[in-house]
Amino acid sequence: MDNRAKFSENLSNLTYGFVGLGLMGGSMAKAIRKFILCDRKNVASHNAEGKIFACTRKESALQDAKSQGIIDDYCVLNSDNEESIKKMLGECDMVFICLPPKNTIEFLLKNQANFKPGSIVTEIAGVKTGIFKAFPNGIDGINFIPGHPMAGNEREGFAYSDENIFQNRNYIFLPYENTDKEALESFKEAMKLIGFTNLIVTDWKTHDHKIAFTSQLCHVIASALVDCAEDTQVTQFGGGSFEDLTRIALINAPLWTELFCSNKAELIAHIENFEKSLDKLKNQIKTENKEELCATLSEVRERRAIMAQYMKKR
Amino acid sequence: MDNRAKFSENLSNLTYGFVGLGLMGGSMAKAIRKFILCDRKNVASHNAEGKIFACTRKESALQDAKSQGIIDDYCVLNSDNEESIKKMLGECDMVFICLPPKNTIEFLLKNQANFKPGSIVTEIAGVKTGIFKAFPNGIDGINFIPGHPMAGNEREGFAYSDENIFQNRNYIFLPYENTDKEALESFKEAMKLIGFTNLIVTDWKTHDHKIAFTSQLCHVIASALVDCAEDTQVTQFGGGSFEDLTRIALINAPLWTELFCSNKAELIAHIENFEKSLDKLKNQIKTENKEELCATLSEVRERRAIMAQYMKKR
Repeated sequence: MDNRAKFSENLSNLTYGFVGLGLMGGSMAKAIRKFILCDRKNVASHNAEGKIFACTRKESALQDAKSQGIIDDYCVLNSDNEESIKKMLGECDMVFICLPPKNTIEFLLKNQANFKPGSIVTEIAGVKTGIFKAFPNGIDGINFIPGHPMAGNEREGFAYSDENIFQNRNYIFLPYENTDKEALESFKEAMKLIGFTNLIVTDWKTHDHKIAFTSQLCHVIASALVDCAEDTQVTQFGGGSFEDLTRIALINAPLWTELFCSNKAELIAHIENFEKSLDKLKNQIKTENKEELCATLSEVRERRAIMAQYMKKR
Repeated sequence: MDNRAKFSENLSNLTYGFVGLGLMGGSMAKAIRKFILCDRKNVASHNAEGKIFACTRKESALQDAKSQGIIDDYCVLNSDNEESIKKMLGECDMVFICLPPKNTIEFLLKNQANFKPGSIVTEIAGVKTGIFKAFPNGIDGINFIPGHPMAGNEREGFAYSDENIFQNRNYIFLPYENTDKEALESFKEAMKLIGFTNLIVTDWKTHDHKIAFTSQLCHVIASALVDCAEDTQVTQFGGGSFEDLTRIALINAPLWTELFCSNKAELIAHIENFEKSLDKLKNQIKTENKEELCATLSEVRERRAIMAQYMKKR
């Protein structure tokens, strides 16, 4: 029997692997169970051969996922279980590494020889510089395709995972030059099936530059806005604006510390551009230059309306 | 017959007046029709004596409001109709002036003697300095109670008005020292009936200081963020954060130019506080001071979680 992963087969017959089963890993596993494999609750219609295996640090998350019919088998992610993890990786056709960025690189360096030949292996780190510095030419023998699902929420852990958070969202794929086209197409097809509608293929430098703006800069601004509030009851005077601007300030501090610092150069440049725009508006207000201020705001409205065309409806 | 407005009566028997029937005036008129007066569509249950009169510049809005059963009678707001407007104001127990701030003051100065004796008259300007400078002691013979419904959306005009935008929102009341308690209670009761759940009584200086933070600063930040974007297609790389932070950048430029400039001192002070917090975060990132950065973000998360307790669920 040929042990190489085959993507010409139906996606519902593949074996999926998750390393990390928190909010993102959990949500993706649930979505694959629901939208690609059949739902175990509906036994009558269950004829797909596909499976989901998972490993993560927290055994309780794995137990919950198993009892909910999301995963078929698991092992706890720790140094005692290296052999079980190796065995699990060797059986998976498509592996999602959903760990914090540094742990992702460590895991990949340690396990790069343990994946099933020809399998698709992806990771979801929010900054790609470190990944591409560690693996400038991919990983031998497999289809290593870094990616970035542009979804999530301010919660943490498998308990909050939700199979529906990917609907109408953007997925960014970062294949290598020599990435197998068929493997990339299968990966994209799977991500479409779980809800992503806007699939973008780009390189890591573009990714880190754009993401520093749409994601990291926004998190810095939201955090600064909460930080500068005089008191924590000011929201009694709120009408929704402050709430919207600071939702993402319910931030996972260690994760975002790592993301901000690992994309420092891009992020600082965006912060400084933002400061220039803020300064322009501040001076127009300070000098009561109503004509220029109104022109700036009109242009802002127009730009935001154009941008809305590139946002998916949710 | 005593012609003075009486608030001991049921709110469903009062005559309501609207000056300005755009997004806010229209939404409030619709909400009063639905939640205080009975719905005209349901003729069988229509036994309240209450009425709604309106004047606004756009005749089409008035015609639409009348044909939809929202208002009972109207006149167009222009200089040819001064006598009709005077007659209308003389019949209303509770008048909502829903014009831009400057027009509000002009209208009040011109019509202050035309209101029904003892009636409640309110306005909804986003900055109160100008109102309280023009009327430092209120308006003789009536209960003039400035207010601020903390609701709305980025759209404009009666066509987009919606009776449900006030559910669970904050309403700020700015009575004068000598405001009649019974009149204030009736006004609050009416606002509760149309959906507001958090009713705050404060003075205009506190209002302008807090609103400069929760509303105006947020609009400046959202506008600066759109202004500094390199291109209008960057949102293809978005995951929701940029969208959330810039929804309010679909800004009504002339209105916000006026609001920003009329609350300049408070707003500039808040912008500068925000810049300090942003600078602190920028330097922690620049120097990769991970310990301090993580501590700042942890504190931000904690503060935002406390703030959430003072936000109403929507």
